[in-house]
Amino acid sequence: LKEIKAVIVGFGNIGKAFLRVLMEKSSFLENKLEKKVKIIAICEADGSLVNEAGISLKEALSRDIKRLNYWKENKNAVSLIQELDLDILFEFTPGNIESGEPGYTHIREALSNGINVITSNKAPLALKFSELMNLAKRNGVKLKYEATVGGAIPIINLRDTYLFGEEIIELYGILNGTTNYILSKMTSELLSLDSALKEAQELGIAEANASYDIDGIDTAAKVAILANSLLGKGVSIKDINICGIRDITLEAIELAKKHGYVIKLIGDCKKLEVAPKLIPKWSPLNVSGTLNAITLETDIAKKITLVGYGAGPRETCSAILADLIDVLRDL
Amino acid sequence: LKEIKAVIVGFGNIGKAFLRVLMEKSSFLENKLEKKVKIIAICEADGSLVNEAGISLKEALSRDIKRLNYWKENKNAVSLIQELDLDILFEFTPGNIESGEPGYTHIREALSNGINVITSNKAPLALKFSELMNLAKRNGVKLKYEATVGGAIPIINLRDTYLFGEEIIELYGILNGTTNYILSKMTSELLSLDSALKEAQELGIAEANASYDIDGIDTAAKVAILANSLLGKGVSIKDINICGIRDITLEAIELAKKHGYVIKLIGDCKKLEVAPKLIPKWSPLNVSGTLNAITLETDIAKKITLVGYGAGPRETCSAILADLIDVLRDL
Repeated sequence: LKEIKAVIVGFGNIGKAFLRVLMEKSSFLENKLEKKVKIIAICEADGSLVNEAGISLKEALSRDIKRLNYWKENKNAVSLIQELDLDILFEFTPGNIESGEPGYTHIREALSNGINVITSNKAPLALKFSELMNLAKRNGVKLKYEATVGGAIPIINLRDTYLFGEEIIELYGILNGTTNYILSKMTSELLSLDSALKEAQELGIAEANASYDIDGIDTAAKVAILANSLLGKGVSIKDINICGIRDITLEAIELAKKHGYVIKLIGDCKKLEVAPKLIPKWSPLNVSGTLNAITLETDIAKKITLVGYGAGPRETCSAILADLIDVLRDL
Repeated sequence: LKEIKAVIVGFGNIGKAFLRVLMEKSSFLENKLEKKVKIIAICEADGSLVNEAGISLKEALSRDIKRLNYWKENKNAVSLIQELDLDILFEFTPGNIESGEPGYTHIREALSNGINVITSNKAPLALKFSELMNLAKRNGVKLKYEATVGGAIPIINLRDTYLFGEEIIELYGILNGTTNYILSKMTSELLSLDSALKEAQELGIAEANASYDIDGIDTAAKVAILANSLLGKGVSIKDINICGIRDITLEAIELAKKHGYVIKLIGDCKKLEVAPKLIPKWSPLNVSGTLNAITLETDIAKKITLVGYGAGPRETCSAILADLIDVLRDL
């Protein structure tokens, strides 16, 4: 049984859900891969929980970690990355889409120090994809980011496995669950955008400041990541033309409906564009609620569409677990 | 550049489409995997084309192979498997669902002789899954069969990659394109089953004897394979309860439609059952035409639905190519 030392940076909903998944799957990982993942630090913005003998996951989940022994006020992730002997950094902080921080610095520091990185943080990858991937390569470690796009939908890792031999010709889809929920409600219940948004906010599907979703910025970040990862485009979010759903009227929705179409916010990784599009009712992309859907067109498989939950802490952990297993296999 | 020696058994639509894909992808495989796949025999029921120096793929595709030099009348696959020094057997014969032959014998012989097998032939696997997988394991080779279910949809290989860490709780879907085409036509154009079937036959989507599709046997074979492969069930097609679509009336279709449902032939790998089911219109499983769709429910990802073309020689080669790459990586 080989011991793998890991740090979690960012202990919000995803970090907590991941600790739960890790508890559930630890004996599976030990049996199947002969690896024991030991979390030796959990870092927040104002300090870190550090225990080189291994943090009790149960304890970290049941209490405010700032009240535990081993909580070190003002100890930050960057200094721990430099001090500790680590195999994996889990980067789960919320990213600023202008600067990519603080995740950008965490990921860069980890990769430079020969530490594998698994992240759910879109911003650093949407801004600095090539730089970070090259840094990983130069240091002989992996940077894994399946969780940044499409939640539980297996899309990034498909490139290196199932689709390794195929040329991807088109790649587009519904990459944001909040806007899809709003558009679905407008279509099925003929609610106005404002009413549908309010409902989404009450249900916790949309944030108070919904601009990041509604104005297409979240979708654009995912388009940039997919375009780099699956199409080798070498772009950043700044190269994406973005039009959100703010101006979609109920009249437009009804007119589309009358002609057998629905309006969906589509991210197109080939055209580097985010915009509301008319999708035929019968299309596999016509999924409702908070679902995401991604269509690939390749030279051999032709069209494949993958549908799943694009958000939700536990669903996102499906992608993180897949990345973890991939990293563990090489350690 | 390592030379990999392979034989193709069964040279119908899939065998020919695969040779074309192999021609298109050979330099890719040489560059990325440093392997050169050399086809040294192509076997048909009444003889084989054999050339240990390597068959010209171009020649084999442009002319009737029985008119080429190296065609050996009455030379059969089994004797070649025993005589030649082989790395991979491609088994593309049509399988008899009662006996699994002739594929069963070809696959068993190859595995027993330490040869990796890649197949699109459902019958042997739907009948003798555990026996053949154990035989592969005992002989230290791989038996790969992604092409047997869902054509271009990546489902079998997902188990060992993306979903390795997850528990699959439910697994069901539309696994036969012909019946889905017929049901879709009945729904959208209010055609009777007979008229829709006739149209499918004229378009080459259904065979003259459509029983294998219409009566749910093809779906049941796929259910058996998925239940074994993804749920570890240890079953054969004989354990599947089968009800086809022959008795679906236009009245039933219309009644379902009025209540927001469509009727689809669903294979359920947990219940080991094939039967027409009511599917809500908004479900990701509601795909039309010849599309297939498979829904997985897991403990972490929750629901994922994969949609793609379940048939078509070139689309099926997407699965065969993925299996080939997996085998080549280990050779």
